[in-house]
Amino acid sequence: MTAYEIIKKKRDGLSLNASEIEAFINGYMRGEIRDYQMSAFLMAVYLNGMNDDETVAFTKAIADSGEKLDLSEFANLTVDKHSTGGVGDKTTLVVAPVAASLGCVVAKMSGRGLGFTGGTVDKLSSIPNYDINKKDFLSVVREVGVSVVGQSEKLTPADKKIYALRDVTATVESIPLIASSIMSKKIATGSHSIVLDVKFGSGAFMKDKDSALMLAEKMINIGKNCGRKMAAILTDMDKPLGYAIGNNLEVIEAVKLLKGERIPDLYDECVSLASTMVSLAKGISTDKAELLVKQSLKSGLAYTKFKEWISAQGGDISYIDNTDKFEKAMFVKDVYAENSGYISEMNTEIIGMCAGMLGAGRQTAEDDIDYSAGIILNKKTGDFVSKGDKLCTLYTNREKVISDVEIKYLSAVKLSEVKPEPVQTVYRILF
Amino acid sequence: MTAYEIIKKKRDGLSLNASEIEAFINGYMRGEIRDYQMSAFLMAVYLNGMNDDETVAFTKAIADSGEKLDLSEFANLTVDKHSTGGVGDKTTLVVAPVAASLGCVVAKMSGRGLGFTGGTVDKLSSIPNYDINKKDFLSVVREVGVSVVGQSEKLTPADKKIYALRDVTATVESIPLIASSIMSKKIATGSHSIVLDVKFGSGAFMKDKDSALMLAEKMINIGKNCGRKMAAILTDMDKPLGYAIGNNLEVIEAVKLLKGERIPDLYDECVSLASTMVSLAKGISTDKAELLVKQSLKSGLAYTKFKEWISAQGGDISYIDNTDKFEKAMFVKDVYAENSGYISEMNTEIIGMCAGMLGAGRQTAEDDIDYSAGIILNKKTGDFVSKGDKLCTLYTNREKVISDVEIKYLSAVKLSEVKPEPVQTVYRILF
Repeated sequence: MTAYEIIKKKRDGLSLNASEIEAFINGYMRGEIRDYQMSAFLMAVYLNGMNDDETVAFTKAIADSGEKLDLSEFANLTVDKHSTGGVGDKTTLVVAPVAASLGCVVAKMSGRGLGFTGGTVDKLSSIPNYDINKKDFLSVVREVGVSVVGQSEKLTPADKKIYALRDVTATVESIPLIASSIMSKKIATGSHSIVLDVKFGSGAFMKDKDSALMLAEKMINIGKNCGRKMAAILTDMDKPLGYAIGNNLEVIEAVKLLKGERIPDLYDECVSLASTMVSLAKGISTDKAELLVKQSLKSGLAYTKFKEWISAQGGDISYIDNTDKFEKAMFVKDVYAENSGYISEMNTEIIGMCAGMLGAGRQTAEDDIDYSAGIILNKKTGDFVSKGDKLCTLYTNREKVISDVEIKYLSAVKLSEVKPEPVQTVYRILF
Repeated sequence: MTAYEIIKKKRDGLSLNASEIEAFINGYMRGEIRDYQMSAFLMAVYLNGMNDDETVAFTKAIADSGEKLDLSEFANLTVDKHSTGGVGDKTTLVVAPVAASLGCVVAKMSGRGLGFTGGTVDKLSSIPNYDINKKDFLSVVREVGVSVVGQSEKLTPADKKIYALRDVTATVESIPLIASSIMSKKIATGSHSIVLDVKFGSGAFMKDKDSALMLAEKMINIGKNCGRKMAAILTDMDKPLGYAIGNNLEVIEAVKLLKGERIPDLYDECVSLASTMVSLAKGISTDKAELLVKQSLKSGLAYTKFKEWISAQGGDISYIDNTDKFEKAMFVKDVYAENSGYISEMNTEIIGMCAGMLGAGRQTAEDDIDYSAGIILNKKTGDFVSKGDKLCTLYTNREKVISDVEIKYLSAVKLSEVKPEPVQTVYRILF
């Protein structure tokens, strides 16, 4: 079947079989199928969808397009975690060492953040000397059971090529394409169990629960069809996660949590994620796993594991022992409530943008990130504030943006006379 | 608005305004918008359509992408004709001189055929010395009122670029894209009146009446919005037109008709087309125009005009005076009926393929055409044949294909005990 016939079939709403999809991706990577044919195909997929079998085949073909990580030496103990991205999401820094402290193996490759705030790679890079590109990262995994590095360029080249095309042809927001892009990388990085954190709400890529659920189910199905143990937790991103937004500010908050502090929302989400990871990888019930996770956090077992990991990867552990050592932004500005009332809504996307304006993110892949920039929240959704109460503190090295960010931040926070119903951060867990 | 936003708008089923469409086409021609963005856009158009305003804007932008023919010296007497293509369609050779013989001005640029059989350009090229690329073709128009040349490369470059892309991305069969492709060329070649011959049936691009009607209406609307006088005739292509298929064979049949022979189907369609052309260009009723057209054919006025035209364009008129001079194929084979009955159906697409196999068409733009190859039909739909009667004669210089073509031809002709209802060739005329 020619490229033309494959595009035509998808255009006409018919289903492609695995060998057709494989031939299309492979032909594309060999340069026989051109960008303009792939983009027409992607638009047809955007508008006509792909069924489960097609999405599985598409994912496998992308995962097979480059090198794959071989984690077989760790048997079935390997477990990966992926978040669809949110504001203030530092959970990997917590759940990776927690899972490792309980005998799981976390060998994680993480993408660089291109959103308003940095990704896990950027957060870890804010720890002086942490080697995010460590060549023999499996030696760290062998030694301490956990390592996180930036994603290898040699993995899933088809995903990179296709994503670049989707980005300029308005074909990004398609559930089968998102699911296969994420899962191809997870499959190629080889962990036996995979826990997905699919976020919904104003600060998430998926704005509503239904699409988050659809995406989660699609990804679970793909993973299972590739022989992986799968789970997904659906979490609320209608407010930032925890109280810190910005790279080293989030490392500091993660350290607090690992030292036993029960930071609302963040604690619950980390426990839920870590329990699910441990349950899958160790084959125990989630209840039992949850108990172990809580003990690990309380006893300092996870914190010790975290320091072992950071240290094994070259990071300066004195910054962890004393987080006051982290570089601080030159300009610090408190933002105060202009009225009284309950915080009924936080537009988390706008709050993310605020952090980006302060310097915590990058707009293009080449931009530098300011590790010290960001926001520390003082009040969150559900809290009562009186006029003049401190809502948050802004940290930046860009003096000029402060007043704009202040106005923007205030616009993102809605006050109401009525106390809003409390919302659980973890909405649902799927297996 | 960026290319991305324009693609997204069409992807989401929204309407684009004229300036957005113009910017997209112009950006594409300047190379700022890339092939892969155009192909994603075309797939979105294929699946979500374009409304009338969008189609008009799309056509105008394409017509404006290159040079345009200036026919203003001929006032409103210019009339063009376009056929969506069929098997045995030699009507241009007849209706152009008929219209010119009645005071209309026919300055026609015609595309090279890429179907099973040649286009008008190929048919004319089968007349020795006819100059299909005549530089000062307007001088022929001034002198005799009619000239046909191949389409200039400088016209509608956007159409060529977009069509080449559609051809490899499965976005050809879209009514707004077909309509705008055809009409952009007609607009750029400048005639004031335009008559479209939209064919439907087994030998046509449009297989059914409804899509033919939709296409015709779309094109009429575009033309009117560009200030042209418009009409379309919907014609039946469920059997070949006339009895000759193949380049010089069709010239010979056209000459017969111009000499006064009333070849069934072909005569009716030519009269209908020419009457509509004359009616539009001269502003007279179709009844009056029909009378004039029939007189012109009967009196030999049209035939004289045809010879003037061919001669002015360098063609060897002795071939017209004596069509026996035309090159003949080396191999001639009669095909006989294997059973008796009424011909109830002719699969005209397959018959077209037969002519192509004999050498009458080209598969790629570089292929040579064999002007003498083709088929002369002896029996058509509705005729009764007895077993052993001659159905047709094959002409070719490719001895090896004859037996395959014979089998294929027989497979295309269905016999029935019942005489089928007669079908009018001209189904409907629209203004």
